[in-house]
Amino acid sequence: MNTKKAFVVGVDLGATTVKVGIVTKSGGLLDQISIDARAKYGPSAVIQQIVFSIQELFGRYKPSECFGIGIGAPGIVSTVEGTVQHPPNFANWTKVNLANEIKSKFNLPVIVENDANCAAIAEATHGAGIEFKNFLFIIWGTGIGGGVIIDRKIFRGPHGGAGEVGHVSIDYNGRLCNCGNYGCIESYIGQRYLSQRTKDLLISTPKNSVKTKLEELIDGDFSKLEPSIISQAAEAGDPIATGVLEEAGELLGYALASILNVLDLRVVVIGGGISAAPAFVYEAIITSLRSRVLKSHKDGIRVIRTKLGNTAGIIGAASLVMK
Amino acid sequence: MNTKKAFVVGVDLGATTVKVGIVTKSGGLLDQISIDARAKYGPSAVIQQIVFSIQELFGRYKPSECFGIGIGAPGIVSTVEGTVQHPPNFANWTKVNLANEIKSKFNLPVIVENDANCAAIAEATHGAGIEFKNFLFIIWGTGIGGGVIIDRKIFRGPHGGAGEVGHVSIDYNGRLCNCGNYGCIESYIGQRYLSQRTKDLLISTPKNSVKTKLEELIDGDFSKLEPSIISQAAEAGDPIATGVLEEAGELLGYALASILNVLDLRVVVIGGGISAAPAFVYEAIITSLRSRVLKSHKDGIRVIRTKLGNTAGIIGAASLVMK
Repeated sequence: MNTKKAFVVGVDLGATTVKVGIVTKSGGLLDQISIDARAKYGPSAVIQQIVFSIQELFGRYKPSECFGIGIGAPGIVSTVEGTVQHPPNFANWTKVNLANEIKSKFNLPVIVENDANCAAIAEATHGAGIEFKNFLFIIWGTGIGGGVIIDRKIFRGPHGGAGEVGHVSIDYNGRLCNCGNYGCIESYIGQRYLSQRTKDLLISTPKNSVKTKLEELIDGDFSKLEPSIISQAAEAGDPIATGVLEEAGELLGYALASILNVLDLRVVVIGGGISAAPAFVYEAIITSLRSRVLKSHKDGIRVIRTKLGNTAGIIGAASLVMK
Repeated sequence: MNTKKAFVVGVDLGATTVKVGIVTKSGGLLDQISIDARAKYGPSAVIQQIVFSIQELFGRYKPSECFGIGIGAPGIVSTVEGTVQHPPNFANWTKVNLANEIKSKFNLPVIVENDANCAAIAEATHGAGIEFKNFLFIIWGTGIGGGVIIDRKIFRGPHGGAGEVGHVSIDYNGRLCNCGNYGCIESYIGQRYLSQRTKDLLISTPKNSVKTKLEELIDGDFSKLEPSIISQAAEAGDPIATGVLEEAGELLGYALASILNVLDLRVVVIGGGISAAPAFVYEAIITSLRSRVLKSHKDGIRVIRTKLGNTAGIIGAASLVMK
């Protein structure tokens, strides 16, 4: 990185929100804007939102001191071509050269990368993975995504699609996943399933005169059953919430055993919305992972929480430009 | 490789047999010796057998024209240190520096590598994988081993243990595997299980006055139920043999879907004793793999048979020295 330049712009493109930040050379996040991605209005609307956010920040920070723009995007991303293909939940988006689109507006270098890979890179350079040369990063949210760090670098695989850990099946006769496979770990522990499972248990469990913590928190509104609420109830000892999260941790451990066996990894860093779950969930993951992984892989098994939280995407995207 | 040197020695160390060969620069196998590994008599007996075989070949080919010795070994192999740890079915073998032991006898460069990786390298450079930059190699025999080829090179993983595909679980509530995990693909399609499954079906199926092909081939001796016999019966249309192999292929396809999703691969090359199975087994693997793998990974899915057969180990071991 040219040391005269003071910062890099990191863009974390999600189907709901575009997050854009000013990131220093040392990975510090100086400033941040979040706006609606307008994903249902097609690619040009989304590009406009990205451009608008960057322009807004360039009103506060001199563009002449910006070294470049890094973008983390969902879907199939080609870092070489700068393209983003079929990002889920983006309307009319087949294949767009996002790097060229943004470059033409600002005349700065632009690098595009898969969003899970960006977050993995950020954890590797500035977050929970900083002390590990090799680890698996997992985004645990609506879906389960992954990024593989080998020798402190991202392992993209031959086609840029490595680390699709959400679609490792733990039961070939199991639940039908959105991807068409059966038993994918995503279909057992993704946000929607956890909410539905909690709802089902709440409905089927005989009511007591005293409200449980979960009943108290949602107050009859099942749409409030988000992971943060389930985690909050579990922290307070709610048995249904605790059971749902413990089971999810156990199942994730089973999937991780297969994945670590294949990739020869020992450390897992968990990010995404559900990574904020209570410590007992991490204990459940480690216990089941340790009981299942190959003996030769048991030494040094670690499962740890993200340090950067939801800023990992911006920081990781920015760090692409710094290299 | 020094072009003045005419050949390399390749050693394929198995618990039953040591195979040693003279391999040309272009991967041609000029000569080969197979002798008992004497694995139950401890490391020095095994080393003696390797040394004896090489000396025997050096009686036929001038050692002065040998560029070095490559050894493929089971267990945990450190190519950097030259050590082999805990190879299964080798008595009293904790950790042995096999490279130093052989080097001290011949004063030639010696390189040691995992046996599945050796076979993968051989298929990549001289076998079924020659047209593919990236593929997964599988040894399908008593156990299921694997080697991952990325960009025509072996992907060892951070600790040299990548590609343990036999211990990917397809059912977290499934069969108990030798490794302690449940539902490992090895426990469903490894040689011992296939033989046992065939035996069980033979016993439980009502006998007809006309003998089935399988009954004819084994003539009442269940110990003859090796994969080659099962394959032979299946080729002749035996329904039990066909069913067992078809089911094995289907289950392997399920495991491969998870593995290819994580590694971002499209091509699988199958070696090992059971790779000689009839073509319909490969069709079963491809059909189930295609039905389960991610849409983005479906293009170019291929599952093909080894070209080098049981010489892959020797040729791959030799090719380590040529690099």
